[in-house]
Amino acid sequence: MMRVAVIGGEGIGPEVTAQASRVLAWFSERRRLPVEVAEAEFGLDAYRRTGKVIPPETRAAIEGADAILFGATGGPETAEVPPEARREGSLLKLRRSLDLYANLRPIVTDPALYDSAPLKERVLTGVDFVIVRELSSGIYFGEPRGIETRPDGSRRGFNTNSYTTEEVRRVARFAFELARSRRGRLCSVDKANVMEASVLWREEVIALHAEEFPDVELSHMYVDNAAMQIVRAPGQFDVMVTDNIFGDILSDCAAMAAGSLGMLPSASLGPADEQGRRTALYEPVHGSAPDIAGRGIANPLGSILSVAMMLRLTLGRPDDAILLERAVGDALAHGARTADIAEPGCAPVSTAAMGDAVLASLDRL
Amino acid sequence: MMRVAVIGGEGIGPEVTAQASRVLAWFSERRRLPVEVAEAEFGLDAYRRTGKVIPPETRAAIEGADAILFGATGGPETAEVPPEARREGSLLKLRRSLDLYANLRPIVTDPALYDSAPLKERVLTGVDFVIVRELSSGIYFGEPRGIETRPDGSRRGFNTNSYTTEEVRRVARFAFELARSRRGRLCSVDKANVMEASVLWREEVIALHAEEFPDVELSHMYVDNAAMQIVRAPGQFDVMVTDNIFGDILSDCAAMAAGSLGMLPSASLGPADEQGRRTALYEPVHGSAPDIAGRGIANPLGSILSVAMMLRLTLGRPDDAILLERAVGDALAHGARTADIAEPGCAPVSTAAMGDAVLASLDRL
Ligand SMILES: CC(C)[C@H](C(=O)O)[C@@H](O)C(=O)O
Ligand SMILES: CC(C)[C@H](C(=O)O)[C@@H](O)C(=O)O
Repeated sequence: MMRVAVIGGEGIGPEVTAQASRVLAWFSERRRLPVEVAEAEFGLDAYRRTGKVIPPETRAAIEGADAILFGATGGPETAEVPPEARREGSLLKLRRSLDLYANLRPIVTDPALYDSAPLKERVLTGVDFVIVRELSSGIYFGEPRGIETRPDGSRRGFNTNSYTTEEVRRVARFAFELARSRRGRLCSVDKANVMEASVLWREEVIALHAEEFPDVELSHMYVDNAAMQIVRAPGQFDVMVTDNIFGDILSDCAAMAAGSLGMLPSASLGPADEQGRRTALYEPVHGSAPDIAGRGIANPLGSILSVAMMLRLTLGRPDDAILLERAVGDALAHGARTADIAEPGCAPVSTAAMGDAVLASLDRL
Repeated sequence: MMRVAVIGGEGIGPEVTAQASRVLAWFSERRRLPVEVAEAEFGLDAYRRTGKVIPPETRAAIEGADAILFGATGGPETAEVPPEARREGSLLKLRRSLDLYANLRPIVTDPALYDSAPLKERVLTGVDFVIVRELSSGIYFGEPRGIETRPDGSRRGFNTNSYTTEEVRRVARFAFELARSRRGRLCSVDKANVMEASVLWREEVIALHAEEFPDVELSHMYVDNAAMQIVRAPGQFDVMVTDNIFGDILSDCAAMAAGSLGMLPSASLGPADEQGRRTALYEPVHGSAPDIAGRGIANPLGSILSVAMMLRLTLGRPDDAILLERAVGDALAHGARTADIAEPGCAPVSTAAMGDAVLASLDRL
């Protein structure tokens, strides 16, 4: 029996996660997927009830889980949650404490959206690549950091971008292996013409390539050029590996190639144990979207497709992952569109109706 | 008499700059623009002749100039130029030594390209915004930086992102003033949810707004969201201000909205003296493009439009700047297209022919 901790979180998180949970239940019932689901509280509501953004029960659920399905966190920082409590319970801290160093963000465009106004100006055919973002190091976590006040009263804010041999190699190894299982091409993105942290990054990637992955075709790109190429011709990429902050920016940049940020799933993986199992957190790429929270109009496909990643990467069910991805394509082909991807003049469906559409497609396929 | 130092540099730099020089000469002859042009050497050729990437004559020309028109630098690092000589003569060092802290990158889409295949999927109507990129601080220059080897033989590469009150305020002041002269809206882009350097950035922008620019409409955006919004709906922006590395990435991301990186000009400005004059370097946003260098096919419009920025910002000729921008639009409307913006099946024009087309339009208008 595999244990999945389901944490809706804040903003639209609970709404989209509810649909993903229905999908997970479908696989448990119809495909005898041996999963045990435990829902856990996170965020403002948890803080109101317990004084903690991540209460002890939630920590326990996370620690006992084989996989976490996460919704979203953040939004207007209410005076209610003091900054320290927020920091203590931040997604960043969670990622770091679980050592989730490899963040996978697949960018795949659905054929049903190619000719779909208003997306047809944006959605490019034949895009299918994965950004592997280093998630537990870099400028997000480097020390020293802070804000200092100088004798003249002026201030200085500073952060450290830092990468070690080991930090680069483990995420690069992950990306090389992924590339080997796909079309065999890896593009490493850095800013080695400006930063020593990137020089080290590039040197370690090159060394690892020579030592362990000579069969993978490796290329390098500066981050500014990569941002442009992702917009101009995303079809050229197979697997891209990059650091924490570049991965953050580039994946949002790439989101538009898929039509909407709402479509995109992600997986964040930790180190493998002796049995090859990894701590894993699955979540849509989008955030808490406070402007539309509670209205039942958010796109649940990013969360639902995160379940497909879970089926593939944690639950050992690659065929079910493919089935679910096909069901999402089928629902789109049958015209289901939430507001973010709806054609002008066509009434969009609700979050729950998109969930219904995917379940109907699963029944049908 | 104003002095302009013209430095073609490397790769396609000399080719595109030659066309921009012809345009400058046109204004000098036909519009009695009082400029004195001095060409200066920079890069590999200079190194071959003098042993320096920036020879003393070039330094003298730069120091004596009211404006610099720069082409491009970089490309395959030939073993011929040793890394120290390269660093000594790098564009980064030049920007820093001239204290060019405000880098303006306007993104304007030309109506003639809206319906122009293969661009019509990319070029969005009504885009007209300016990215003001901080250019002389941040992670490009912060100390400490380096690569260290640890006792176990592994290494660590590190850089410092650092911003002071003064560094933020001077570029923000520039951006607020620019916004005031345009549609009155400024969007400041940072990653204040992750970096203290960005927290300081945001706080200083907010304080300056309250103190000096309450009439400007100020908003804030995280850099990942900004990358997405620039692709999704660039028409929403008027002026954007951001740090050095974010500005680097976002401006390349935005380039596609204009159809091609080859179309985009830039101005890099230093502090104003008592007469309000600023050291200024004008250059296309594109790089040296070694793959097409020497073939006479590069798009010179980025360089030519940089001359328009020079007319406006250094030479005190706003009417001539508008005339030149109109001439570029007119040349495009008459069908002139270099390879980067050509329709499939239509023969593109050469770099020189695009220069001819702009000069013909100038004669006509
Ligand atoms: C909320 C924020 C800290 C986070 C990040 O930058 O990692 C988010 O943008 C993401 O990409 O998951
Ligand atoms: C060449 C490189 C150092 C430079 C930069 O990053 O500033 C370039 O990309 C630019 O944008 O002018």
